[in-house]
Amino acid sequence: MLTLDKIYHASYVLRDVLRMTDVIAAPHINPDAQILLKTENLQVTGSFKVRGAYYKMSQLSAEERARGVIACSAGNHAQGVALAAQKNGIQAYICLPDLAPISKIEATRSYGAEVIMVNGIYDDAYNKAVSLRDEKGYAFIHPFDDEFVIAGQGTIALELMDQVEEMDAVIVPVGGGGLISGMAFAIKQLKPSIKVYGVQASGAASMFRSLRDGHIGNLRQVATMADGIAVKRPGDLTYELCKEYVDEIVTVTDDEISAAILALMEQQKLVAEGAGAVAVAAAMFNKVPVKGKKVVCLVSGGNIDVTILSRVIDRGLMMSGRTCKLNIELADRPGQLVLVSQIIAELGGNVIGVHHEHTNEGSDINGCYLHITMETRNHEHIQQIREALLAKAFKLID
Amino acid sequence: MLTLDKIYHASYVLRDVLRMTDVIAAPHINPDAQILLKTENLQVTGSFKVRGAYYKMSQLSAEERARGVIACSAGNHAQGVALAAQKNGIQAYICLPDLAPISKIEATRSYGAEVIMVNGIYDDAYNKAVSLRDEKGYAFIHPFDDEFVIAGQGTIALELMDQVEEMDAVIVPVGGGGLISGMAFAIKQLKPSIKVYGVQASGAASMFRSLRDGHIGNLRQVATMADGIAVKRPGDLTYELCKEYVDEIVTVTDDEISAAILALMEQQKLVAEGAGAVAVAAAMFNKVPVKGKKVVCLVSGGNIDVTILSRVIDRGLMMSGRTCKLNIELADRPGQLVLVSQIIAELGGNVIGVHHEHTNEGSDINGCYLHITMETRNHEHIQQIREALLAKAFKLID
Repeated sequence: MLTLDKIYHASYVLRDVLRMTDVIAAPHINPDAQILLKTENLQVTGSFKVRGAYYKMSQLSAEERARGVIACSAGNHAQGVALAAQKNGIQAYICLPDLAPISKIEATRSYGAEVIMVNGIYDDAYNKAVSLRDEKGYAFIHPFDDEFVIAGQGTIALELMDQVEEMDAVIVPVGGGGLISGMAFAIKQLKPSIKVYGVQASGAASMFRSLRDGHIGNLRQVATMADGIAVKRPGDLTYELCKEYVDEIVTVTDDEISAAILALMEQQKLVAEGAGAVAVAAAMFNKVPVKGKKVVCLVSGGNIDVTILSRVIDRGLMMSGRTCKLNIELADRPGQLVLVSQIIAELGGNVIGVHHEHTNEGSDINGCYLHITMETRNHEHIQQIREALLAKAFKLID
Repeated sequence: MLTLDKIYHASYVLRDVLRMTDVIAAPHINPDAQILLKTENLQVTGSFKVRGAYYKMSQLSAEERARGVIACSAGNHAQGVALAAQKNGIQAYICLPDLAPISKIEATRSYGAEVIMVNGIYDDAYNKAVSLRDEKGYAFIHPFDDEFVIAGQGTIALELMDQVEEMDAVIVPVGGGGLISGMAFAIKQLKPSIKVYGVQASGAASMFRSLRDGHIGNLRQVATMADGIAVKRPGDLTYELCKEYVDEIVTVTDDEISAAILALMEQQKLVAEGAGAVAVAAAMFNKVPVKGKKVVCLVSGGNIDVTILSRVIDRGLMMSGRTCKLNIELADRPGQLVLVSQIIAELGGNVIGVHHEHTNEGSDINGCYLHITMETRNHEHIQQIREALLAKAFKLID
């Protein structure tokens, strides 16, 4: 059974192994609230997951430790288990679906774990891990539905109680529910007036729906950029703990998550993964009542592929009007490109890409298309440029 | 005169205003050394500059404070002065060259400073600031060549002495030299065995050259992505302090800086600007003797435009073989694109962009070009794909 004792004990065990991550003010995330960030993206392995994995392993018997541990994950749990096993002197076996990104496979290997590639998706890797547990006697390290794992994650709440005076609320990402279960349990034992809000991606709202429906449900599929919390079914333990201790669970969209990732980079100089940014997204877009409150957003992890980060930046710039693509239909005669360039330059747009296309279905046989990418100040600035082009009789295609 | 007393006093003054930024282990930056990061990119305003600016302003007379302060900068110093003035209840005037990025102008304004846009480059803005100082009696806040500013920056060294046990060396970014002067002075007073290394961008190596030549020189021009340390001439005070207290100054290239920015994002989940990453670049590329040592790299700031960050990521991925562009000359007949796609897919390359071009000078009139962008694992992987294409008689154009 989960007890406050276990969470304090986990805190003691983890003390010299992990980092007490910093709490950092984020004054521009939501101007109506005092927002603070608990930066578990700066935890070793780049995520909080190592807390639960380490504490769980520290509690195995000598016999279990000698046999080794097995886990299944394509992400942060894999790295957490691998590092925790290495630090505990235990051999770890990690089942990964063979479509897992090469960067995650390499990171898991780099901590000394043996990676077992499984043909298929996460569920296939999970089944393989379970059958290896049964066959070889490895201890299975569940990513969330385990009281020791939950107690390990709950240590973050104890740190927050020391680090932040008089907080009104904590906002926590929710996948399977291990993190929020541990944190909500600890907080509600110690100071029940602190609100605990959970956040899921709208494309993977399994805990949100299960609590709403009053029973655990299984999502047929999940679709979100926040792969770290794309969980189809909450845990049994975590469902009960969330039902009892969590004040509310809300959802955010992928666009809101992207905006939060961009805000964390620009304003706070922090790299967060999708799952790591959902609490900030909830605070930014007022999904929970933060107005006038002192609120800690948990930034749970930072393991995002830089190629995705690059796309998030591009999308975020486009959404906030700081870059813009225009498709202009031109008559095919000399001087047209000059004229367009002049109009844009005079209004302060900075052209960063031009593609000029002669033949195109749908356009006049004498016409052509000009695709221009430019840096702009904001949406009004784009509107000014569009109007100036229209005033010179250029045709804009959306 | 700079004294250790002043630096301790600055530390006391700054204690409740600024953040004591965290020191974070960076185990993968250089496998032969124990590298730690002092994360001043997580300082308020996103850079250490606010330390010196705040301390300087706290030492102005009541009369000076009433008249206001003036500074000139397009970057971190502007924001540091603006915030420090706001917190001291002083009106700040900041001269900015009118080509400064809009994000920096807005950030400076957001701290309540009055921004004065000056036609031209930095030097013009500087001259305007000096003439306003003379005309209006504003106190001029120099970005580096001032003993109070230097003392403020030196407080970082005091923090490090408390935060890190038994460090062997500190690596510090160098522009005008204010930061390293304060840090080196403090360190050499307290524990002279700690080495203090400075790093400049090779395109703006003014302190490096001045020390080498034995007298202060003026660079005719500077060219580096590390705009925060693109300084043409070291300060008089800072030159003397560096000559006396700094062990060595080295340089890094823009490519090395880009690699360091990418490593900080991927491995450490930290956003650093160019100037903020030079110390890490020096450690990564063994520009100073770090082997077997415990070394602190100062990450001095994180104020980088996200559009530049996006380009750094793209370039970094290309350099490390994780994305690749191929230009393939094809005969213009059906099935060619299928064949190329098959070869790439079979070898595990992930195509993310295709541009097919029919007419092109230099190609056979019946030929055409295929430009393919794909995600790859590393340089060997790219080589495999190239060889497989060559084996099928495709012609690759570099």
